[in-house]
Amino acid sequence: MDFQKTYQEKVLYINEGLNSIIRQRESHPTVLRAMEYSLQAGGKRLRPVLFLSAYEFACIDNCSIQELDQVRPMACALEMIHTYSLIHDDLPAMDNDDYRRGKPTNHKVFGEAIAILAGDGLLNLAYEVMLENVPLETEKLNRYIKAMLIISRSAGVSGMIGGQTADMENQGSNGNFSELEYIHTHKTEALITASLKSGVIAKREDTELLNAVAKYGKALGMAFQITDDILDLTGDLQELGKMPGSDKKMSKLTYPARYGLEMSKKMSRQYIEQAVSCLEPYGKKGEFLKLLALSILDRSR
Amino acid sequence: MDFQKTYQEKVLYINEGLNSIIRQRESHPTVLRAMEYSLQAGGKRLRPVLFLSAYEFACIDNCSIQELDQVRPMACALEMIHTYSLIHDDLPAMDNDDYRRGKPTNHKVFGEAIAILAGDGLLNLAYEVMLENVPLETEKLNRYIKAMLIISRSAGVSGMIGGQTADMENQGSNGNFSELEYIHTHKTEALITASLKSGVIAKREDTELLNAVAKYGKALGMAFQITDDILDLTGDLQELGKMPGSDKKMSKLTYPARYGLEMSKKMSRQYIEQAVSCLEPYGKKGEFLKLLALSILDRSR
Repeated sequence: MDFQKTYQEKVLYINEGLNSIIRQRESHPTVLRAMEYSLQAGGKRLRPVLFLSAYEFACIDNCSIQELDQVRPMACALEMIHTYSLIHDDLPAMDNDDYRRGKPTNHKVFGEAIAILAGDGLLNLAYEVMLENVPLETEKLNRYIKAMLIISRSAGVSGMIGGQTADMENQGSNGNFSELEYIHTHKTEALITASLKSGVIAKREDTELLNAVAKYGKALGMAFQITDDILDLTGDLQELGKMPGSDKKMSKLTYPARYGLEMSKKMSRQYIEQAVSCLEPYGKKGEFLKLLALSILDRSR
Repeated sequence: MDFQKTYQEKVLYINEGLNSIIRQRESHPTVLRAMEYSLQAGGKRLRPVLFLSAYEFACIDNCSIQELDQVRPMACALEMIHTYSLIHDDLPAMDNDDYRRGKPTNHKVFGEAIAILAGDGLLNLAYEVMLENVPLETEKLNRYIKAMLIISRSAGVSGMIGGQTADMENQGSNGNFSELEYIHTHKTEALITASLKSGVIAKREDTELLNAVAKYGKALGMAFQITDDILDLTGDLQELGKMPGSDKKMSKLTYPARYGLEMSKKMSRQYIEQAVSCLEPYGKKGEFLKLLALSILDRSR
């Protein structure tokens, strides 16, 4: 399998979905333009790719494109939730970042008021789009609603928003390991794991598979966030697309600050090994998710 | 019917629902406290009351309390969406208000970062709570999802968020009637009408009833917003619970600014008469909604 090619195909498929969602929407043009700006700033699309890969992972044979088309809106909703969280996190009252994905942040272009509204708009649109695309068959519908619930909880105050709150509260403090872990599991890992679990459950109810992707997601999410912390320390603006050193500027609690750079790299590798081992029982079926986990170690943005 | 007593009973029923939602939630304590602060600042609960009244309006006989208990979370979700929009609207980057419902605004107490997160948290929690309480029976479930979709669209960029964007963009401009109407229909009326329509559809599919409450809601929403504009001009801090004159301070496009105070009062009365007339065919069944519309004219907050 050519991992890069397969990943890029999925990204194109997601981008096509996102474009058509935005294009079809009737709204005040300013807020729509601001939403589109951040959505199309060229992210990695990690969460929707994980969703689609988990869906395919749960297919007994190959999935038809018609089947994937039916759940693509849910994959796009995950990217909208992720993007809204970035817009709000970048605000002056939060992380006060000027660059994101190599471009000026939303509020730098549209002003704070519109950036807040664009974030609100993307979060709400994620739910609108999922609700507009519920399947008709009762059994599918029930699984779809379970998937929506998993996503909504991971995005909410018991997940991502809880993590961001802890992150805000810990600025300038030395913090301890349990706070750092709370931030990482809630802020990043929750939505990553939810992307995988909702992908599986949108296809079928299978406790064993759900547990496997949940464990994989937990390890992947931790590795991803540690790498994020490392890149903030070692990356450059061009490669990273955002200003490095912002964690240090904000005296944030990070892995490298707590454990040093080498130890953090080692921890990240260990988490990736853990993620890969969760897929071993599934052989060929888990190949893409395995390669995806390994690719985290080569992240430069 | 003792209108005030009946209204207050519904408010207590909603408050009880909101309290149990917040109390059950596992989250970072700071963001939960900020959400609770604004939720419990003593609003009128207009939207959930409209939802419950529309649900009862759609009942052939009287509704059982068990039935109402099943849809109460959706009524509470409407209040959470409304409250999140107030928290974000009050932010310094938006309307920059220091008081709301007689208390310091959310960001004045918790800071801007937490206020943004509390707003995000309430919006997301509205969907979590609705998804946690979907009914099991297929037919009910299908209507429930339609109700959720109506709510989500009215809250989103084609509804409330679109209206707030227009409101932000029109500050300091003289504006014309169509802009003023766009702001009012989207910012306020959309969620009010959605509360009524979702209430009916949660009970049954009935095009005639849906049209009746939609027309009623449109007129009520306009009257409500015009009264809001009037109160901003004539009310006092104690009665209003927020600083009057803020529209003028922000050079906002309002009905009194455009048509003068007397003409605005007349327009508001006309909208209420229109709302009341939509309920005439329903006699006794529409009494509460009729009295509710008339009460808007006596609003002092």
